[in-house]
Amino acid sequence: MDIAVDAIYADVCGSAPVSKSVSDMLQMLFSTKQCANPNANHALGVHLLERVERARGTIASLLSVDADCLIFNSGSSEGCAQVFHDFFERYKHDQPLVLHSVIEHSCTLQNIKRYCLEGLQALEIGHHADGLLDTEQLKQLLETHEGRPILVCVMAVHNETGVIQPIEPIADLVKTYGGLFFSDMTQAIGKIAVDLHASGVDFAVASGHKFGALPGVGFLYARNRYGLSPLIAGGGQEGGLRGGTQNYPGILSIETALLEKQTKFSFGNALAQQARAAFECRLQALLGDVVVIGQHASRIPCVSFVALPGVNTKKLQWALNNRGIYITTGSACSDKKNSVSHTVTQLGYPERMASSTLRISIDEEHCQFAYERIIEGFAQALSLTCADHPQQSMAQL
Amino acid sequence: MDIAVDAIYADVCGSAPVSKSVSDMLQMLFSTKQCANPNANHALGVHLLERVERARGTIASLLSVDADCLIFNSGSSEGCAQVFHDFFERYKHDQPLVLHSVIEHSCTLQNIKRYCLEGLQALEIGHHADGLLDTEQLKQLLETHEGRPILVCVMAVHNETGVIQPIEPIADLVKTYGGLFFSDMTQAIGKIAVDLHASGVDFAVASGHKFGALPGVGFLYARNRYGLSPLIAGGGQEGGLRGGTQNYPGILSIETALLEKQTKFSFGNALAQQARAAFECRLQALLGDVVVIGQHASRIPCVSFVALPGVNTKKLQWALNNRGIYITTGSACSDKKNSVSHTVTQLGYPERMASSTLRISIDEEHCQFAYERIIEGFAQALSLTCADHPQQSMAQL
Repeated sequence: MDIAVDAIYADVCGSAPVSKSVSDMLQMLFSTKQCANPNANHALGVHLLERVERARGTIASLLSVDADCLIFNSGSSEGCAQVFHDFFERYKHDQPLVLHSVIEHSCTLQNIKRYCLEGLQALEIGHHADGLLDTEQLKQLLETHEGRPILVCVMAVHNETGVIQPIEPIADLVKTYGGLFFSDMTQAIGKIAVDLHASGVDFAVASGHKFGALPGVGFLYARNRYGLSPLIAGGGQEGGLRGGTQNYPGILSIETALLEKQTKFSFGNALAQQARAAFECRLQALLGDVVVIGQHASRIPCVSFVALPGVNTKKLQWALNNRGIYITTGSACSDKKNSVSHTVTQLGYPERMASSTLRISIDEEHCQFAYERIIEGFAQALSLTCADHPQQSMAQL
Repeated sequence: MDIAVDAIYADVCGSAPVSKSVSDMLQMLFSTKQCANPNANHALGVHLLERVERARGTIASLLSVDADCLIFNSGSSEGCAQVFHDFFERYKHDQPLVLHSVIEHSCTLQNIKRYCLEGLQALEIGHHADGLLDTEQLKQLLETHEGRPILVCVMAVHNETGVIQPIEPIADLVKTYGGLFFSDMTQAIGKIAVDLHASGVDFAVASGHKFGALPGVGFLYARNRYGLSPLIAGGGQEGGLRGGTQNYPGILSIETALLEKQTKFSFGNALAQQARAAFECRLQALLGDVVVIGQHASRIPCVSFVALPGVNTKKLQWALNNRGIYITTGSACSDKKNSVSHTVTQLGYPERMASSTLRISIDEEHCQFAYERIIEGFAQALSLTCADHPQQSMAQL
């Protein structure tokens, strides 16, 4: 497929493009024959294992944790499956309980559903309208069920709204009641600075393709790896916690991409926040009835999740698409399925808003230009210049 | 690390280098911005999903099966874990039994060990000295345990000896007694022509990095995917059988690499067989007491697994390594661990042979040159030209 030079990719929360530095690193790896099995005992294998372990050290250092707390895998879905497998197998005879945010990623919800068939109990924690977790409710649930094995699941950054949860106080609360805390950090790691140690979480997961590394690779962080059980058994790789020949191009791609991102957090994120604020203002000025979900909470700088009541956003998505602007109506998992957003509904908004969402997520580096093009695209798609009643034109889309 | 221009990589059974065509395809994919989440509903996502599904169709067609029997994953270890998870969860209350080749890959053996802790019973099937399965023993075991849920596990091609098992008659036997047949095809697919449908197996697994595709990607073949349970739950990808954003660069790399390999099977494999036979003869002439494991069985053309009684093959590996020749003493999983080969022991050879193995596995295209260099390397390493007693020199290594 040919992609226009001025095309705007506004779906980095779905998947970020493989970065040029990653692509160059891979090209160098493959063209100089640096390919082998990292478990082999010849120099090529030994060298690749060293590079994998160096990458583990670098990534761990960027996230302020010990290297042996990181277990490389195929990405967040696998990491999440391992957390649930480990928790359920360990406590299945002790009335295990999961307390989870009601707007967790579908992967977490699927795992909960699966183990509930086998005896796991699960209770939901609600959110305030601004996207922040109802920590009072969490506290009450922890109090009520104190003494049972409890796994608390709260995403660090929501995959649609981009709202950043106060992970440290949540972790403190969970710890006070003796629970374990799993935070899906798929949208946090590589997008904002993360100090995993200070966060206080017991488990976290990440996926390379969310920040410019290769798809199909990621890692599980486990504060205490001892006693953890593998989901995928094999030849003893990852200290026996994840079998299978190490995906060394993928692991090195995480190192390369995270190092690149790290340099941009402090300066780039502030600019991106400003650019997004200006964009959201212009959008509201242009369209009138626009609600930015989580607007007043702390959010990662690259995403706007908006509701445009009365607008057929599926049609708007395609109208923008035809102008080379690629956005989604929500998470990739929901983009083809739901016309009503589960997230927006759970945050207490009415259906006319939940059924008219758009997620615009932009690479910080190109955000100024991208926002210009998107506003222009909206205006063209809606023919605002000649319509007397923009809301009417939007509903027709 | 700098690799000499005339270096010989003789460990393709450990991991094949990422092929140039794959590397070029990836470069094109990344440089033309063909990156997105294949589940997104914008044109880029839709296009990538189409490419993933086209790749599934091509790969399925090369293996003579329906496309929906292939479930993309992170590789054989994951596929193997899913087969065992599915079998055990389905039959755990019905005295499930696994009958497995005694020289299966460590991944299969680890899965067996794991589920045996939960109530699975497992019985071993022996092999003849030539590497072929003792099908009489399998038949007796099937007869004895008829009526129970049985999973038979036999690798199609052994990862060290390269011996090709007669998969079709084994599958017929298993079917006669109502069992299920899982064949680890990690060393078969991409190395020889495979007709998965005709093979009669119920489950098979493959890893891209064994035939020039990316590491960290592979697939599970399931004759009947309906009712199969996912190991990794998620957003509904792979028809609900494997969650996680599709590893589209990896999947496309499998398509590219398999298409490339396919063109070489008929012609290239015959030449490679001849070159290997000549190499093994020369090795025997040079060193005297050399046993080629499985020499008289049908083998994939790219591998020689030899025993050099009395030789310290770990030292020989390093001596060759220093001459830019990269070989292993056995499988990658065992290369650093064992000094005594489990495989060779199980085939009935004495310890002096099991403790002196080398696996030489060569890309068919460069085998003539590679074999020359290896023979030369052996001769140099062993200083055969000036030693009166070559065996003595070898033992000193």
